[in-house]
Amino acid sequence: MPVITCVLIEGYSEQTRRLLEERLTDAARSVTGAPWDGITVMINELPDANYMRGRIERIPAKAPIQPAVLVQQFLNAMGARDLAKAKSCLAEDFTMLFPGGVEFTELEQMIEWAKPRYQSIKKNYEKFDDAFDKDGAVVYCFGTLSGQWLDGTNFEGIRFVDRFRVVDEKLTSQRVWNDMGEIRV
Amino acid sequence: MPVITCVLIEGYSEQTRRLLEERLTDAARSVTGAPWDGITVMINELPDANYMRGRIERIPAKAPIQPAVLVQQFLNAMGARDLAKAKSCLAEDFTMLFPGGVEFTELEQMIEWAKPRYQSIKKNYEKFDDAFDKDGAVVYCFGTLSGQWLDGTNFEGIRFVDRFRVVDEKLTSQRVWNDMGEIRV
Amino acid sequence: MPVITCVLIEGYSEQTRRLLEERLTDAARSVTGAPWDGITVMINELPDANYMRGRIERIPAKAPIQPAVLVQQFLNAMGARDLAKAKSCLAEDFTMLFPGGVEFTELEQMIEWAKPRYQSIKKNYEKFDDAFDKDGAVVYCFGTLSGQWLDGTNFEGIRFVDRFRVVDEKLTSQRVWNDMGEIRV
Amino acid sequence: MPVITCVLIEGYSEQTRRLLEERLTDAARSVTGAPWDGITVMINELPDANYMRGRIERIPAKAPIQPAVLVQQFLNAMGARDLAKAKSCLAEDFTMLFPGGVEFTELEQMIEWAKPRYQSIKKNYEKFDDAFDKDGAVVYCFGTLSGQWLDGTNFEGIRFVDRFRVVDEKLTSQRVWNDMGEIRV
Amino acid sequence: MPVITCVLIEGYSEQTRRLLEERLTDAARSVTGAPWDGITVMINELPDANYMRGRIERIPAKAPIQPAVLVQQFLNAMGARDLAKAKSCLAEDFTMLFPGGVEFTELEQMIEWAKPRYQSIKKNYEKFDDAFDKDGAVVYCFGTLSGQWLDGTNFEGIRFVDRFRVVDEKLTSQRVWNDMGEIRV
Amino acid sequence: MPVITCVLIEGYSEQTRRLLEERLTDAARSVTGAPWDGITVMINELPDANYMRGRIERIPAKAPIQPAVLVQQFLNAMGARDLAKAKSCLAEDFTMLFPGGVEFTELEQMIEWAKPRYQSIKKNYEKFDDAFDKDGAVVYCFGTLSGQWLDGTNFEGIRFVDRFRVVDEKLTSQRVWNDMGEIRV
Repeated sequence: MPVITCVLIEGYSEQTRRLLEERLTDAARSVTGAPWDGITVMINELPDANYMRGRIERIPAKAPIQPAVLVQQFLNAMGARDLAKAKSCLAEDFTMLFPGGVEFTELEQMIEWAKPRYQSIKKNYEKFDDAFDKDGAVVYCFGTLSGQWLDGTNFEGIRFVDRFRVVDEKLTSQRVWNDMGEIRV
Repeated sequence: MPVITCVLIEGYSEQTRRLLEERLTDAARSVTGAPWDGITVMINELPDANYMRGRIERIPAKAPIQPAVLVQQFLNAMGARDLAKAKSCLAEDFTMLFPGGVEFTELEQMIEWAKPRYQSIKKNYEKFDDAFDKDGAVVYCFGTLSGQWLDGTNFEGIRFVDRFRVVDEKLTSQRVWNDMGEIRV
Repeated sequence: MPVITCVLIEGYSEQTRRLLEERLTDAARSVTGAPWDGITVMINELPDANYMRGRIERIPAKAPIQPAVLVQQFLNAMGARDLAKAKSCLAEDFTMLFPGGVEFTELEQMIEWAKPRYQSIKKNYEKFDDAFDKDGAVVYCFGTLSGQWLDGTNFEGIRFVDRFRVVDEKLTSQRVWNDMGEIRV
Repeated sequence: MPVITCVLIEGYSEQTRRLLEERLTDAARSVTGAPWDGITVMINELPDANYMRGRIERIPAKAPIQPAVLVQQFLNAMGARDLAKAKSCLAEDFTMLFPGGVEFTELEQMIEWAKPRYQSIKKNYEKFDDAFDKDGAVVYCFGTLSGQWLDGTNFEGIRFVDRFRVVDEKLTSQRVWNDMGEIRV
Repeated sequence: MPVITCVLIEGYSEQTRRLLEERLTDAARSVTGAPWDGITVMINELPDANYMRGRIERIPAKAPIQPAVLVQQFLNAMGARDLAKAKSCLAEDFTMLFPGGVEFTELEQMIEWAKPRYQSIKKNYEKFDDAFDKDGAVVYCFGTLSGQWLDGTNFEGIRFVDRFRVVDEKLTSQRVWNDMGEIRV
Repeated sequence: MPVITCVLIEGYSEQTRRLLEERLTDAARSVTGAPWDGITVMINELPDANYMRGRIERIPAKAPIQPAVLVQQFLNAMGARDLAKAKSCLAEDFTMLFPGGVEFTELEQMIEWAKPRYQSIKKNYEKFDDAFDKDGAVVYCFGTLSGQWLDGTNFEGIRFVDRFRVVDEKLTSQRVWNDMGEIRV
């Protein structure tokens, strides 16, 4: 029956506070197995003048862009082949690992690699999952691919899943798995 | 600078409490962007006689088996072809979705399907990720497959990822993606 | 030396909060025997966006009409023979138990029963006591009756006490004791 | 959705803490109208070395005998005509007010007054209600009287109600109403 | 790793709250030896309607003039020979103890005593230290004296220290030590 | 009416906790001017497994030797001319400033300087005051000196005051003022 109180310095939006309540609820539920109704979360906001740590008054950190939102921005930019925008989502040491174990460090490499494979491709998302750990966040998304093969015929319903590691509001890696090989077989 | 206090009824193990502290820390970090050092989590344990909700004294819920642990139990049982044990991990409505979009509801179906594909297979895990939401937990694991083809030759290093949905300490679905098709191509 | 903190969702009036402080003080005093000066009550109000139970944000319940106030409204309406208003204070299964063990379910029955007893009657209240338990509230009021007998002579100073059970802002029963029988003797 | 935390110095029995939780729940419910399930009460016990008020460490007050229990002790002693024990429950300025407005300050006066009225009497209790306010506690009990008239005939089912004021674990007044007059009429 | 929460009734200035945070931090640091970064202080302000002690609502005490500030006002007034203002800082039973153990109860006595010693004198402050205990506050200040001897020659750099006891925003004693004797030797 | 709650990791002695309560009380009193009776301090101790900051479990800091105690150890060692023990109380950059502005960095220098001044000396302490700030602690002690002059005559009642700066359980400076010059004059 966890009762959770979280003290925050004032300044986070209502949406951010609600997300915090949900994540704290989910965290407590996942560990304790308490029934949902037994989990209470309360946020107590203090003006920054009323909070001191280490004898220093603090200002609240800026709420970061949510990892799943960042991933969607990247994926949308890639879908629109807006490489500049897509790159703005990436960390310097970003790497991509594609089916067959092909690795890229630049978006252009991946695009070049795809050219002999299909004319166009579109990701249809079924679900985003986000996980959090001591290294930051991991975002998975899965769904189906549709598009046009090189010969002009269409394809659709090809299963895929992507895994992104997010650190400090930048993507540091993308891993891709899909059924394209199955289809080609 | 979130300061989180979680009141629990006494009875959770030290390991469970530590996991709770970590998850609450991660949840707070993910939403607020606060520096790690600024996130404090404190657990205040009360004897059950000191907690009442709805004018009823409560006993603590039993800490559930962690979703990633349950997934590992299932995968180990499957690896050892201990179907009875593997089935004990599954919800009644468990479904499996395999490369190419093949769907099974029984473990035996999947084993039958695999027979003309390889003699043996082994999963080598690189990482487990667990995500929590209002429906329960999702566990992803990825790594490489190794084993023996039907012709007796060995394979290894084939990338895979699995996604499990966990509800009430049972697996309700498994989705599998891998590079086997890539290899066969 | 109880120190009581009560978290409330914002929206209760100052008067309601003061009443809550008094009742919590009285409750703590009654059980612990602590000296008044050692009992501190603090109310911490949170905006509704800062409170979540069961992964659902909540809005505060509407402060109910206080049981003693409801009883006074009923008694005043009866005194003014405003039966419509009096009935609006009653639960569907309201019952009245009068001296001699006479029971009524309708206000009109009681009025009929009283006709051969006195021309008019008025209750003069000395004190209202309210008690709270798991079934709701109980309100007692006592004082003296004055009025006119059928023969036109006046009476006054006849002791009475009423007990009302209040559930969900409605009266479910009234029990009446008084000294009329003593006087008639 | 009140969440109440009460800090106590260690030393109160589990029964006392449960009663405190119930009374705090009832107090919060009575004022806010919150649904039972939305009312959480938590007691945080501190060793006396961990509590200081006014720069003085305190020891917990002794939990008082509950007013309703004190009243029952008095009533049982009176029923057994154990006047010494009954008197030990009374404050120095104890007064009794009986049907017809008869007032006594000594138990013996009341017994004398009863002699020409009945041979014996017994109270059968239906319910005790206790109310708390700034002056202490009020206990009401009601039920029926049974016994023997002077002529040896029996009586039973005569309604009564008693009201006791309790201050500092002593009774300071008793007020009695009953239907004896009705019966005699 | 102390985490300190201080509930205050609203009404103290931001400067007062910051000072409170610093003093609570220093107090916790001095006793526990915790690293600065491990000490968190949070002030939770409640409207006065949300605080009750002893069943009485309270208003916040007026923040007192800080002892070191009071001492500076007194010293500045003495430096300017504004005796009226200086006296307004003193408790009725104020006493002064000067080098050689000379004691005064009136400012005029001290001035008279100084006349054959120097024409003028000025205190140059290096540091004020304030200590707090159950009797109130103690303020020390030290630095050097400069001025003019009776023969017109100047002096400077003569070390001094003053100790003031402050009770209820008034000075109750001043003790003075300095190196004037050393110099005269 | 400050109500202060301090969460500590278990492991501090009762004496340390009491001292913490007193210092927090004094700090709150000094800033808010609240009446003593209105200041409540509560210490909530958590096992170290129940406290996490920065996703790291912490152990409590060892309670430091109190500055005034350290000063007394140093002064006692000096009185007994136990230089080894006295030096163990000193920081590496310890400095002494004596009447007349004489500065030493080694205890031996001071002893040498004193030789032509008196045969023996003893400090009689009237009071120790300790002050805390962001740099650590300051301890003042004052009282009177007694001893024997070089010519064998005795002295007593000579006023003195010492000021020690304490950082990390070592003395970093001692400043001394006294009336010896006054007496020699």
